[in-house]
Amino acid sequence: MKFPNPVSVKWIAELIQAEIVGDAFSKVYGINEIHKVETGDLCFVDHPKYYNTCINSTATHIIINTKDVKVPEEKNLLVVEEPFEAYLMIVNYFRPFTFTTKAISDTASIGKDTIIMPNVFIGKKVTIGNNCIVHPNVTIMDYSEIGNNVVIQAGSVIGSDAFYYNTKKHRDVWYKRMQSCGNVIIEDDVEIGAGCTIDRGVTASTRIGAGTKIDNLVHVGHDTNVGRNCLFAGQVGIAGAVTIEDGVTLWGQVGVSKTLTIGANAVVLAQSGIPSSLEGDKTYFGYPAEDAQMKRRELVWIKRIPELWKKVMENK
Amino acid sequence: MKFPNPVSVKWIAELIQAEIVGDAFSKVYGINEIHKVETGDLCFVDHPKYYNTCINSTATHIIINTKDVKVPEEKNLLVVEEPFEAYLMIVNYFRPFTFTTKAISDTASIGKDTIIMPNVFIGKKVTIGNNCIVHPNVTIMDYSEIGNNVVIQAGSVIGSDAFYYNTKKHRDVWYKRMQSCGNVIIEDDVEIGAGCTIDRGVTASTRIGAGTKIDNLVHVGHDTNVGRNCLFAGQVGIAGAVTIEDGVTLWGQVGVSKTLTIGANAVVLAQSGIPSSLEGDKTYFGYPAEDAQMKRRELVWIKRIPELWKKVMENK
Amino acid sequence: MKFPNPVSVKWIAELIQAEIVGDAFSKVYGINEIHKVETGDLCFVDHPKYYNTCINSTATHIIINTKDVKVPEEKNLLVVEEPFEAYLMIVNYFRPFTFTTKAISDTASIGKDTIIMPNVFIGKKVTIGNNCIVHPNVTIMDYSEIGNNVVIQAGSVIGSDAFYYNTKKHRDVWYKRMQSCGNVIIEDDVEIGAGCTIDRGVTASTRIGAGTKIDNLVHVGHDTNVGRNCLFAGQVGIAGAVTIEDGVTLWGQVGVSKTLTIGANAVVLAQSGIPSSLEGDKTYFGYPAEDAQMKRRELVWIKRIPELWKKVMENK
Repeated sequence: MKFPNPVSVKWIAELIQAEIVGDAFSKVYGINEIHKVETGDLCFVDHPKYYNTCINSTATHIIINTKDVKVPEEKNLLVVEEPFEAYLMIVNYFRPFTFTTKAISDTASIGKDTIIMPNVFIGKKVTIGNNCIVHPNVTIMDYSEIGNNVVIQAGSVIGSDAFYYNTKKHRDVWYKRMQSCGNVIIEDDVEIGAGCTIDRGVTASTRIGAGTKIDNLVHVGHDTNVGRNCLFAGQVGIAGAVTIEDGVTLWGQVGVSKTLTIGANAVVLAQSGIPSSLEGDKTYFGYPAEDAQMKRRELVWIKRIPELWKKVMENK
Repeated sequence: MKFPNPVSVKWIAELIQAEIVGDAFSKVYGINEIHKVETGDLCFVDHPKYYNTCINSTATHIIINTKDVKVPEEKNLLVVEEPFEAYLMIVNYFRPFTFTTKAISDTASIGKDTIIMPNVFIGKKVTIGNNCIVHPNVTIMDYSEIGNNVVIQAGSVIGSDAFYYNTKKHRDVWYKRMQSCGNVIIEDDVEIGAGCTIDRGVTASTRIGAGTKIDNLVHVGHDTNVGRNCLFAGQVGIAGAVTIEDGVTLWGQVGVSKTLTIGANAVVLAQSGIPSSLEGDKTYFGYPAEDAQMKRRELVWIKRIPELWKKVMENK
Repeated sequence: MKFPNPVSVKWIAELIQAEIVGDAFSKVYGINEIHKVETGDLCFVDHPKYYNTCINSTATHIIINTKDVKVPEEKNLLVVEEPFEAYLMIVNYFRPFTFTTKAISDTASIGKDTIIMPNVFIGKKVTIGNNCIVHPNVTIMDYSEIGNNVVIQAGSVIGSDAFYYNTKKHRDVWYKRMQSCGNVIIEDDVEIGAGCTIDRGVTASTRIGAGTKIDNLVHVGHDTNVGRNCLFAGQVGIAGAVTIEDGVTLWGQVGVSKTLTIGANAVVLAQSGIPSSLEGDKTYFGYPAEDAQMKRRELVWIKRIPELWKKVMENK
């Protein structure tokens, strides 16, 4: 998330009650997770194991719970006891969740010839392009960006919060939500079925590429990046931060684990499970998803075990 | 889809800008897909591979992109460059998607003692019988027909559009929706859980037979024909144009591939996947779903591979 | 379900037209299923196979279709021809489903600083604690009890009716719903994703323990009891009357069969299927879910079958 305008390190330090190590007048442009962060952005880290990764990332400003680290001269530390709480304070300042009784926000922008059906909710600063159809009982949460010729069928939810938690098992409540401040971007000519859920990015965007078509009851996790002209059949589930390249087909009930990549034009057959990255231009099947032909041969081999057993007994 | 009144071949030709080969005054009763088409209906075909199937189907009138075919005397051709676009024009003429701000259409008919809860959407020409309960946040799309004593739990969607696309990978947008003009028919005493989605037929009907009970988050694809007294547990997914005969039980998370048939009184155990037709009166399990007892024995055989390995090594 | 005030056996007998065998003035406190019933409660039984179980349960009053049974002196029989119909009459008397045009019931109680977004339905006697967020298009059915700091994301359904039927295949309609009169209890700090469905208990409660976090499109069946600090990823499906102890993690698309127990701190990997109880503090995988390491080794063994075959052929 970028801030509407850059602020100073000093301003942030006052907001989160931090001690500054570095340049109080340096500009802060936004806050992002370590793998999304850009120069000028803030990042936060609270575990010594990740100190170095964070300090050596592209982040210019680091919210951290120690002063006892080496930092390149151009980077600034904001030292607090609880960096995670500081992150939440910043998100709540810039993108607070706000109560409304309006089903369609005054700050939403809706294009020409776009049809919004009854019982739809459209949140703050949502933009919807031209010639779209948003069917009844759809929910489009704050900051979602939707292109032209997009169809969203009934009951779907765009921009729900990420399933992304800070875990500390010594707390009474083990899991504390890393509050989302990202959004969902749906490009032109995308069609989304009924009863789907597409989570927004934690600090960046979940993207559905142009021309992609999604069937009913499909779940797409936070920060997932879906290419152009993909096809997801019913009840497909995709975890967070996955990269799905152009032209990928996932058949019904396929499950995709987090942060992996599926190469362009891959086809994954129904009910397969994908625990790790897959090369493009191939057909996959099974759990863990493997080359479909190989997997089919495996099923034949399994059926031959009794015969094999018999042969072994005869050999004795 | 049948037209409200029959029209002439000439009238259709003018609508879609087609050249007529045959009888301009012959009557056209409706438009349907090749496997649903009846005498007097229109059908369309754009690939030479399917010319003959279409011409030899029950269709009386054929929208096609060539004049260079042999046709029985009683049949008529409507020749256009893009038959698929012609199909869309006809559907848009007879069943256009129309904007409304009304959550419950004036043209819907709702029976005696039927309860419609808040935040429900009911579209054009929907009919609902007597003594039904439609729970909050349900969406019932245009032309759905619902019998007596039907319960639809919260958040479900009846009559969403089919996931059915015309694929041309040389286009910028690969998949172009074959617009649905069919409907959903839900017979008496059916109960549908929360968060379900039932797609309407592309040109014909998706049917849920009398007395069938469906749990939560179940997806039923377009043109699927479900018999009487079936039982579908949570998160079952059924693709398009499937035939499920009477008394079939599908346990949780079962996935069913398209166009196949499941015989009467078959039982399919949880998480099974069904890639091809199954005989009735049996119990199935696994992927691909097979006789449950056989499949269980297979699992036992797999566990014996290490023992088998050991034996083979000893035999050496 | 407990009645608002205790009633006499005589009063119940008049409501359901039963003959009393026992003390007409004994007090009846509620009606419950056999495994939930407490002293002073009613229970019903209609099949000779279950007569003894019911009579020997904690139930004080038994609705039954025979007089020809031995009953302890302190217990009372209410004899009717159709005990199941009598059950429905009692439920309909005490917890009738009632029509409303109000999206938020006057009898619901909503705590301080709790945000209810547009298009939400909140039923009769629902209680919601402080500092909760109920997102758009959520449905919360009658009698649900929701704690503090609870988040329910868009489109979810809390308190849908149980998928629980009385089966008689000689009837025209085979399955007759055992009408739910229980509720859902969601404890403090629970977060529920978008598009989830949580069924209420048939006569008792479905419980989601404090601090538990649930991702999108998850289904939780009736009477299931989920402990504290559990984590359920997207599209998990849990059947009825399951016990899930504290700290259990279920990854994406896991399916859990009915009435079993998953021990504390168990982890079940994605797409696994759980047909029977699992001990705590272990990691599970596959169908049927087994120790994950063992199951992974099994996958390796399967890949070695062709090699094994070759060896056996050489040994010949």
